[in-house]
Amino acid sequence: MSQKNEALQLEQDRDDPLAHKRECFALPRDVIYLDGNSLGVLPAHVPARMQQVVAEEWGQSLIRGWNDHAWIDLPEKVGNRIGRLIGAEPGSVVACDSTTINVFKVLSAALALRPDRSVIVSDKGNFPTDLYVADGLTKLLDKGHILRLVEPENVTQAISEDVAVVMLTEVDYKTGRRHDMKAITEMAHAAGALMIWDLAHSAGAFPVDLAGAGADFAVGCGYKYLNGGPGAPAFLYVAPRHQDNVRPALTGWMGHQAPFAFDLDYRPATGIDRMRVGTPPVLSLSALDAALDVFDDVDMEELRRKSISLSELFIREVESRKIGLELASPRDPNERGSQVSFRFKEGYALMQALISCGVIGDFRAPDIVRFGFTPLYISHADVLRAVDTLEKILITRMWDREEFKKRQKVT
Amino acid sequence: MSQKNEALQLEQDRDDPLAHKRECFALPRDVIYLDGNSLGVLPAHVPARMQQVVAEEWGQSLIRGWNDHAWIDLPEKVGNRIGRLIGAEPGSVVACDSTTINVFKVLSAALALRPDRSVIVSDKGNFPTDLYVADGLTKLLDKGHILRLVEPENVTQAISEDVAVVMLTEVDYKTGRRHDMKAITEMAHAAGALMIWDLAHSAGAFPVDLAGAGADFAVGCGYKYLNGGPGAPAFLYVAPRHQDNVRPALTGWMGHQAPFAFDLDYRPATGIDRMRVGTPPVLSLSALDAALDVFDDVDMEELRRKSISLSELFIREVESRKIGLELASPRDPNERGSQVSFRFKEGYALMQALISCGVIGDFRAPDIVRFGFTPLYISHADVLRAVDTLEKILITRMWDREEFKKRQKVT
Repeated sequence: MSQKNEALQLEQDRDDPLAHKRECFALPRDVIYLDGNSLGVLPAHVPARMQQVVAEEWGQSLIRGWNDHAWIDLPEKVGNRIGRLIGAEPGSVVACDSTTINVFKVLSAALALRPDRSVIVSDKGNFPTDLYVADGLTKLLDKGHILRLVEPENVTQAISEDVAVVMLTEVDYKTGRRHDMKAITEMAHAAGALMIWDLAHSAGAFPVDLAGAGADFAVGCGYKYLNGGPGAPAFLYVAPRHQDNVRPALTGWMGHQAPFAFDLDYRPATGIDRMRVGTPPVLSLSALDAALDVFDDVDMEELRRKSISLSELFIREVESRKIGLELASPRDPNERGSQVSFRFKEGYALMQALISCGVIGDFRAPDIVRFGFTPLYISHADVLRAVDTLEKILITRMWDREEFKKRQKVT
Repeated sequence: MSQKNEALQLEQDRDDPLAHKRECFALPRDVIYLDGNSLGVLPAHVPARMQQVVAEEWGQSLIRGWNDHAWIDLPEKVGNRIGRLIGAEPGSVVACDSTTINVFKVLSAALALRPDRSVIVSDKGNFPTDLYVADGLTKLLDKGHILRLVEPENVTQAISEDVAVVMLTEVDYKTGRRHDMKAITEMAHAAGALMIWDLAHSAGAFPVDLAGAGADFAVGCGYKYLNGGPGAPAFLYVAPRHQDNVRPALTGWMGHQAPFAFDLDYRPATGIDRMRVGTPPVLSLSALDAALDVFDDVDMEELRRKSISLSELFIREVESRKIGLELASPRDPNERGSQVSFRFKEGYALMQALISCGVIGDFRAPDIVRFGFTPLYISHADVLRAVDTLEKILITRMWDREEFKKRQKVT
């Protein structure tokens, strides 16, 4: 690292309005964690809160907890807290189930609103589980729906008048490429189609404006940038204009108009509640609820500025050192989410070597190494240290076991 | 309480081979908890285990936890542990999602295996969410399936040659009435139908023998007799003979043959794994996993003997005191699960009064007060104290606020 870079990095960290947020997280020692896009870091206050939920709320209140601790309202409460981060209207987000199951719910709801159309448009940059849901639902419905799967850059051309639903993940999990939510939503609507956004790599990563974009439905993940813990509950958004028109496919008692009347007949609840299905997972919802505290005073525009600053520094440093990695993410930061990916033929081995040196990112076949930048707990100094490590591994060919052994013998 | 009863009760508790299990639970003070059929009590070691999972596994291992702590295998691991309690073959149970969502999975799978039949048989004693799922799925499929809903005692007559699936909850959540699993399953099979059992009020309550009964599918709940915590993950059973024939309707990446290959096309995993959908909820699955420890050395026949002893004592005491409650559960213990219900016109007010006196059961409209007997942490002494409290409330009409105020002025 050059002295000039070091000075710049120190200045950037000193002026960082989010620097104090790092203390809110229980970061492991000797690790630079660039994988918060896969599993977010534990917020420092969550263990104590979980202890309270387990030992006191469950242990002491037992069944009375549903009322005494408002467990029953957690899906809406947590939903609204997430909603604030993604530009959703109050009462239009619910935290529940997994992302995959929520994709099934919104896709089935959307198709039912367009009964005369049969095409679902998606792209090859979508996370596979979303595509699997489309496949499974299509076969289940058995009404001739087809999935029109195109390259990400060809999405807009694929939106024709026979399209029922356009379903995309805003940020590509491999490359970090970001779709233009507003433009594509408008295009979908112009063709008479409905628009579903998967915000798995968006929520908590940068400002999202679902209402402003006019999105119809959205889903997203609780355990990435929202730091809700491994396998945290996911979330789901239905635009207010659709809420009382959708008939849920997954019709459970928690989505009933009066769950505790125990009626034999299903009557959907009004509003977003009808998208709930079974009993809410109180322990994991409470962890996610607590984790969201760290966002309470965060200006998402500030977060985005820092995210871009971190990722730009990372790209600049990796490229200037000429260590043989090829940028797989868009070069324009406005076209990226909060991750940067590079291609490297021996990417798997490289990532193993990096992890063994305390720099945690991850690998996606066949040749992508990806690095997530989570501005609440990553500094510019972390970025530079990560690149130093990367450089050392590439220079010593540490990722190549045979080569590495040879070199060790020489020195 | 008569001296004779007290002596008998002391003897029964002294000879109770499960008495030592009470120490395994963090029972709140001054409470007799007869609602473990709704939400099980916190096992005493679970808070420490949860702390470890949150602070160490998540906090320190972060993304490495999927391998280092085998998070990825939790659904099968926990499934097999539950499987042992319900007579399931190894590798035929998976712990995942909610009971409602699992009903959707097995019902859709079962209907697909009987494409030429259109009737689903269920009964009015089934938990409503199961019936809502049947309604929602039927409307989604739009192929003319109908739900033939009969009284519990008329189920066997309803199983005709047009029936695709018989779907029942073994133990009625209101009355505790228990179906004959083996006989009904045989009858369903004789008619060419498939059999789905909901074990929400069975698993952990008494021995279940899914394999012996020849059941095709089953689902059940993690937070009742299994003590997994509020909203714990549910479970799902598919008989080995069906596992590689069912095509899941909820097709998610965790049910894919190779989840981490990130293929664009869905290929179902072999075996029970294909019934998995999204990322497993590690925190709540870990709580359920830990909670199951208390069952490790439990002889389920022993558990059943004590359950019957407790419920028989309860019925005998309530009836002998002539306090105006009418038994709503079957009198024959072989026809009951592990709960006892009584009818009382002012049941809601009565239950509120009971809870305020530290005896926790629950109320189901219009007039059912129900009491669950969980032999791992309830003693015969608890049962007698509960009946004493019930008697006091009924004699003083404590449930009737006006009457109670009047009496308090007099004394």
